[in-house]
Amino acid sequence: MQGDSDSDPPSYRSPHAGGRATVELRALGELGVLARIRTAVGKTRSTGVRIGIGDDTAVLAVTPGTSLLATTDLLVEDIHFRRAWASPADIGWKAMAVNLSDVASMGGVPRWALVAAALPATAEVQEIDALYEGLLAAATPHGVTIVGGDTSTSRLGWTINVTLLGEHSGAPKLRSAASPGDVVAVTGSLGRAAAGLALLEQGSTTALSAQTQDALTRAHLRPMPRLAEGRWLGEQPGVHAMMDLSDGLSTDLGHICRESDVGARIALDRLPMPPAVREAADALGTDPSEWAAAGGEDYELLLTCAADMVERLAEGLRAATGTALTAIGRIEPREASVTYVDARGEPVLLRGGYQHFHG
Amino acid sequence: MQGDSDSDPPSYRSPHAGGRATVELRALGELGVLARIRTAVGKTRSTGVRIGIGDDTAVLAVTPGTSLLATTDLLVEDIHFRRAWASPADIGWKAMAVNLSDVASMGGVPRWALVAAALPATAEVQEIDALYEGLLAAATPHGVTIVGGDTSTSRLGWTINVTLLGEHSGAPKLRSAASPGDVVAVTGSLGRAAAGLALLEQGSTTALSAQTQDALTRAHLRPMPRLAEGRWLGEQPGVHAMMDLSDGLSTDLGHICRESDVGARIALDRLPMPPAVREAADALGTDPSEWAAAGGEDYELLLTCAADMVERLAEGLRAATGTALTAIGRIEPREASVTYVDARGEPVLLRGGYQHFHG
Repeated sequence: MQGDSDSDPPSYRSPHAGGRATVELRALGELGVLARIRTAVGKTRSTGVRIGIGDDTAVLAVTPGTSLLATTDLLVEDIHFRRAWASPADIGWKAMAVNLSDVASMGGVPRWALVAAALPATAEVQEIDALYEGLLAAATPHGVTIVGGDTSTSRLGWTINVTLLGEHSGAPKLRSAASPGDVVAVTGSLGRAAAGLALLEQGSTTALSAQTQDALTRAHLRPMPRLAEGRWLGEQPGVHAMMDLSDGLSTDLGHICRESDVGARIALDRLPMPPAVREAADALGTDPSEWAAAGGEDYELLLTCAADMVERLAEGLRAATGTALTAIGRIEPREASVTYVDARGEPVLLRGGYQHFHG
Repeated sequence: MQGDSDSDPPSYRSPHAGGRATVELRALGELGVLARIRTAVGKTRSTGVRIGIGDDTAVLAVTPGTSLLATTDLLVEDIHFRRAWASPADIGWKAMAVNLSDVASMGGVPRWALVAAALPATAEVQEIDALYEGLLAAATPHGVTIVGGDTSTSRLGWTINVTLLGEHSGAPKLRSAASPGDVVAVTGSLGRAAAGLALLEQGSTTALSAQTQDALTRAHLRPMPRLAEGRWLGEQPGVHAMMDLSDGLSTDLGHICRESDVGARIALDRLPMPPAVREAADALGTDPSEWAAAGGEDYELLLTCAADMVERLAEGLRAATGTALTAIGRIEPREASVTYVDARGEPVLLRGGYQHFHG
C-alpha cells in the first residue's frame, strides 16, 4: 500500500472529520464487518497463502529450510493508547508495528499476520476501516499479509491483538547471547517516543515548534520497526544478543542481562538523544535522560557485540540502511549488576522502565 | 497434563475458596507474573520448539512437507463469558478449546499456542495461575505447547487472546467445497452448550437434577474440541466441506452456503439433541430446537459429504472415535436458499445464530 518503509508513514483524516453520515458497527452486523475487512485486506498481494481470511484457519506455506517466528501483542485502550490522541489508523499502525519490531529484533522476515479486534457496537464503520488502513499501512511495505483474525464486540473500550508470523533462514539473535566484555549498542535514537507521549498527555506547548512537536508525537504514534536493520545485523557474526526496545532501555537491558546471566554498565551521556528530545525536556521541565533510558516505545534495536567489531558494525549498518549504531556501554560479569553512570562516571539511580501491573 | 482427550475435563478449586491470603498482580509486577507463567508453561513437553517463552519471538520448526495452520480468537469479559459463573480456569480452557476446534475443523494437528492476556492489576495471582492451568489442561492432551504471549494490565475486565498454530500434511477441508446433493451432517449432539448457558444465566432450577445441570453447564464452560474426529474426517475423500459450530448451526451453515455458493434444507427433527437438552428446555419453558439450531458454542463439526457415503462415514467415525455422525439435511442449489423444515416438511423461521455488533 505504501511504497517505501524508509519514508514517513502516511497521514489519515480523522474519521470524525467532515460532515459525513456515520454508520455504527451494530447496523452492519458481524457478517457485514467481516465482508468489509475481507475486501480491504484482499487487495494486498501475498505469497505463501494457500487459504486466507474466510475459513476456520489460514493455511500457509512456510519456506522450506526456514524456522518459523511467532509473536503476539495485545493493545488495550487507556493502557497502551488513548483514543483522545490516537486515531483508529494510529492504533492499527502501532498494533502491527510493535509485532514487526519483535521479528526485526530476531533478524527475521515478517510474513503473515492475524488480527483480533474487540470494539464497542457503537464504533463507527469508518473507524474500523481506518483501523485496518493503519494495520495495512504498517504491514504492506514489509510484505506482510493479514491472513486471518477475529472480530467481536466489547462492553467498553478498544482491544487489538496482532499475532505476527515470520521466517528466519539462519540462527536468530537471542537475548541470552551477551558475554562480559561485549559492547552494548543501540540503533537510531532514544527518547523520542517518550517525549511524544509526554506532549500528547500534557497537550501542545508554545515553547516548541509545531514541527518538533509533530515529529515527537509521530514517533510515539507511528513507530518505524527496524526490519532492514534487524536483518542486516542478524547476519553479522559479531552481533551477539539482540532485542527491540519496547519497555525502555532499563527494563529491556534487564531482560538481556537476566537471560545471559551478566551485568552491564551504561554511560547515560552516550545515549543517542536528538536535539528535539532535549528541547522538549527543557520545555516540559524534565530530564531527557529519563526518557531515553526508561521511557520505552522507541522500537530501536538493542544489541551486544564483540568490542572490536562495533565500529565496523556501525559503518556497515549505516552503509546498508542509513541508520546509526551507537555504543552506550559494556556488558560486565553478573556480580557487577546493571549500573547507569553519568558523564563523571558516578552511578545514577533510574526510575524503572515500564512494567505492567505495578500499582 | 490430562491423560485423555476423551475424558471429562478436570475440575478446579475456585481461587476464592478457602481462607488463603491473596496476592494481587500489582504486588508481583510484570516480571513476577512472567516468571510465574514461564514456570507453569515450562513444565510441558514440546516438540519443534527451538525458542519458547523468553525471547522477542518464538522460534519453531514446522514439519517439512506440511502446511501451517493459523487461527486466533479473542475472549472478552461480559461478551464471551461472565466472571460470575466462569472461573479463571474455565476461561483459560475455553480460550484454548475454541482455537483447537478451528484446527480440528480443517482436519489438522495443533502444535503451538501464543497467549495474550489483559487483566486488572487487582486480579489475584491465584487467578492467573488458574487461567494458565485451564489453558494447559485444554492444550496439553493434544500435544500443544504455549510458546509465547503477552501480558498487560486492563482498565477493567479480563481479555484473553489465543493464537493457535497447527500443521496439515494433506489438503484441508474448506467451507467452500459443498455441492448440491451433498448430505449435511454433524458430529455429536447439538444444544447442550446453549442449554448450559441458559442455566448459568438464569440460575439453577429444582426442575432438573444436579447431574443434568452440571453436564449442561460444563458443555458451555468446558467444550471438548473434536480433534480426533476432525483428523479422521479430514482424511476421508467423501467429506467435502467442513467447519466447526461456534456461532450456531444457522450462522455457520450460512458460511458454508455463502462460500460454496449453494443453498441447503435442514430437517429440525433430525438435529441430534440429547434428552438433557429437551429436559432443560421443558424446565425453562423454551424450544430446544432453537438451542440446537441457533444456540452456538457446541464446537461440534459440521460437514457436507457425498450422499452415498454418509452411512459409511458414520460407521467409520464411530469405530475410530466413538462419536456419532448424524445426517440433518441436504445441500441444494443456491436458488433454494437455506431452509429449516419441521417434521411435516413445513418451513420454520429461526432466530439467527450469534452475530457480534448486532444491537
